Amino acid sequence: MQTIMAQEVAEQPDAIAATLEALRPLRAEIARLVGDRRQILFVARGSSDNAAIYGRYLLEVHAGRTASLAAPSVATHYRSHLDLTGALVVCISQSGQTEEIVQTHEWARHCGAVTIAVTNVEGSPLAQAADLALVTAAGLERAVPATKTFTTQLTAMAVLATALAPDPSALDADLDRVPGQIERLLAARVGVDAAVTLLARTNEVLVSGRGLVYAAAVETALKLEETCLRPVRGLSYADLKHGPIAIVDPQLVSIVLAAQDGPMLEGLTELLADLRSRGALTVGIGGDAGFAAAADVSVAGPDLPETVAPIGLVVAGQLLAEGLARALGLNPDAPRGLDKVTQTDT
Amino acid sequence: MQTIMAQEVAEQPDAIAATLEALRPLRAEIARLVGDRRQILFVARGSSDNAAIYGRYLLEVHAGRTASLAAPSVATHYRSHLDLTGALVVCISQSGQTEEIVQTHEWARHCGAVTIAVTNVEGSPLAQAADLALVTAAGLERAVPATKTFTTQLTAMAVLATALAPDPSALDADLDRVPGQIERLLAARVGVDAAVTLLARTNEVLVSGRGLVYAAAVETALKLEETCLRPVRGLSYADLKHGPIAIVDPQLVSIVLAAQDGPMLEGLTELLADLRSRGALTVGIGGDAGFAAAADVSVAGPDLPETVAPIGLVVAGQLLAEGLARALGLNPDAPRGLDKVTQTDT
Repeated sequence: MQTIMAQEVAEQPDAIAATLEALRPLRAEIARLVGDRRQILFVARGSSDNAAIYGRYLLEVHAGRTASLAAPSVATHYRSHLDLTGALVVCISQSGQTEEIVQTHEWARHCGAVTIAVTNVEGSPLAQAADLALVTAAGLERAVPATKTFTTQLTAMAVLATALAPDPSALDADLDRVPGQIERLLAARVGVDAAVTLLARTNEVLVSGRGLVYAAAVETALKLEETCLRPVRGLSYADLKHGPIAIVDPQLVSIVLAAQDGPMLEGLTELLADLRSRGALTVGIGGDAGFAAAADVSVAGPDLPETVAPIGLVVAGQLLAEGLARALGLNPDAPRGLDKVTQTDT
Repeated sequence: MQTIMAQEVAEQPDAIAATLEALRPLRAEIARLVGDRRQILFVARGSSDNAAIYGRYLLEVHAGRTASLAAPSVATHYRSHLDLTGALVVCISQSGQTEEIVQTHEWARHCGAVTIAVTNVEGSPLAQAADLALVTAAGLERAVPATKTFTTQLTAMAVLATALAPDPSALDADLDRVPGQIERLLAARVGVDAAVTLLARTNEVLVSGRGLVYAAAVETALKLEETCLRPVRGLSYADLKHGPIAIVDPQLVSIVLAAQDGPMLEGLTELLADLRSRGALTVGIGGDAGFAAAADVSVAGPDLPETVAPIGLVVAGQLLAEGLARALGLNPDAPRGLDKVTQTDT
């Protein structure tokens, strides 16, 4: 019997297409709301935080705006007053009711920011409070690990970028190809079983990526950790080289994600070689032919340019997490110790 | 025979006092340079990145400026042009010659930012290129793990905050007490040996903290990992609760850092109880009497308020890392696979 997680993973092509259809008409309104504000702050936790990382790179690289991740505790615990009159604050919460995010949103308004909510629940506290709500069309998600709510958040980030970019046409055309590419990945599952076999043999897993793809790497790490109940580290290429690479040894399996093009591909291919030279077993997700050849096991990624590749790459990561949980005799739908809506104490 | 790392850990009271003396006279110049710029961006990697995390919270909480960490690859790989005319960019590099940081600095200038360099090497490329250089007075550091160069970076962050805060008098007075408090910690080493014994028995370690103290938690994780060559995760309290807490089990030793006061103390004390209820063994560093009582092993922290406590708390973390490396028969001065100056490919 298929797990609920597997069903929801399979629903992503439709969920992403529906989200594009729902959000694209809001672009003029987004552009009006943001106006000439150059500073964008994301507020999020957990998987939503990983979506914010993608949004942050995409807005800096393709929309020329300075973007960064806010520290919610500055609002909820230290109650600082910052001047945010020149800022757009984007709050991301699947449920739209995580108290910490709702409170930080209220604080941002109070500090003078205009606000956008990205949530999967229409009429949720966050959707109601924001200047504009981008409601993703993932439908009800029942498995605890976020899958379709996550990739539709990434889709919302991309729509936001097309609304604010000087020339969004290429990005926009690429977005149209995302649902079909994910469908292809889900049907073929190239390399997934071999990677699961490799991962099942070790308890030490590290996931790395860089730049736009970094978000897909940390989300893959979180997904593997949540569903398989083992520590999995998600590290950027750069952070990995500044210290943690010292711990690479033959017990470690390293997963590296890359797009098929872009300025990070060469370095990430070299990273695979470096990790192998230190004795680690490697799984490459995506990349080009050279990248795939540099890994012990290659998992196919989407045929998409780097800008939107993370939306497809993370689906490959979800397949690994779901498959590994089953291989380990675990239930990926309801991992021990986790609830669907997480409240951070505020 | 004492390790070089232990010698350099012991030099910190003098290094911090000398750094305060060197940097305090530059405050008027800092304030003039920054003017009414409300946005601060930090550029750093590795340990310096952890110093930037402290700087970010301190400037948001005590200087009312929006502060965040830049993604260097936006400059070095994507070559985006951002409008930084309203920003102060603070580049932190112990050596002042990490190519990635030097390049990102050049980019920031080009994008219109005013810049400050925080480095331990006078006349280094970064010190020469910045509008103003805050040269820390750690002296030559020979062990690979950064210790005194890190705590003097934290000291530079605090001096920066006193230069930009509306009322810096309390923070300034607290800073005066830091060297003496660290001296006291180093002499007493309360709880250090017991914590090392506990840590030596496991291969699964997690370090957590929140808010201002989060920087000391991630630096402690990095230090344990670098010197002891085992995976150690540094997670904020909030990130831990959004997923990874599912992996807590009786094999795991959790280290939690807290200041003796401030809005995070209650939550971090509850975190210790939560971790213990999940079967993990716990080490508490710092906190108040209630926090110490909630941990299996309590390591003494400094008698300092939360604003400057991280500078002392991280010294306790250094003592654990140095002690654990020796207990494991490793040489903390020159860990396998690491060089003193790390170059990220640019």
